Amino acid sequence: MKHSISVLVENNAGVLSRICGLFSRRGFNIDSLAVGTTDDPEISRITIVADGNEYTVEQIEKQLNKLVEVIKVKTLSKDELLARELMIVKISVTAEKRTQVLTIANITGAKVMDITLTTMTLEIADTYAHLCKFQELIKPYGIIELVRTGTIAIQKGSETITKK
Amino acid sequence: MKHSISVLVENNAGVLSRICGLFSRRGFNIDSLAVGTTDDPEISRITIVADGNEYTVEQIEKQLNKLVEVIKVKTLSKDELLARELMIVKISVTAEKRTQVLTIANITGAKVMDITLTTMTLEIADTYAHLCKFQELIKPYGIIELVRTGTIAIQKGSETITKK
Repeated sequence: MKHSISVLVENNAGVLSRICGLFSRRGFNIDSLAVGTTDDPEISRITIVADGNEYTVEQIEKQLNKLVEVIKVKTLSKDELLARELMIVKISVTAEKRTQVLTIANITGAKVMDITLTTMTLEIADTYAHLCKFQELIKPYGIIELVRTGTIAIQKGSETITKK
Repeated sequence: MKHSISVLVENNAGVLSRICGLFSRRGFNIDSLAVGTTDDPEISRITIVADGNEYTVEQIEKQLNKLVEVIKVKTLSKDELLARELMIVKISVTAEKRTQVLTIANITGAKVMDITLTTMTLEIADTYAHLCKFQELIKPYGIIELVRTGTIAIQKGSETITKK
């Protein structure tokens, strides 16, 4: 089962290294990891998507809480989270196929960022599952280059993991 | 000056820890870091945005190339890259202010993900600078929670950093 773990940390150079080290030492299997700033420049927020049972997630939480730079750890359950991921992809597209690709883009919510005689570059932000579907759809044209962020997540409704 | 460094790595648990360790040991100042899968499940792509002069970037490239899991390192110059970042933000919004927030969302290209009696949750994918502008615009309403991915980047045109 996939779990999304939100971690608020002090924004310093060593903390990410310690967190990644912890995961690799313990053999926890990370699917994705995203680090970004928050509205407070002193605090970064890391979203980790990991595969495992309840026990594994509990262990991850415990280990994270031991690190001094960690301010808060919260595992969001599947029912209570809004998750998104971003993908940029460059594909081979000749003039004859451009309309086909545009149709896929319009249906899936992707946007064209760049175009050349032989390629198109598209961006799309959606759920992990939706991005996988989009990737399947454009695969036949020939993916030249593909880059994804990790998943970020936030709680549904008005609740918050921050202290405010 | 900001530099975007794309790193293709073998997808294993320890590599991210080693890369972050390298940056923190050498005192390189990372602005953002994003890790995601590529179209090849064996290969991950890490985008690092770092501040520094030409010399610093050269040093970072050299150190990265020393790691066995690193397949390719490429620093993209500002003129040749398409960069995007994703943000999810939850703000306090009462019924009276909803239209104001919707107007900002329409102009900036943000989408509403969720709404409650007292809050709205929005997502936006754009450049770092555009996200900062958006954040300034919605700040007066009261940011409850904010999460960003790191920046991801791809070369303009038909060129690619992968081997295909």
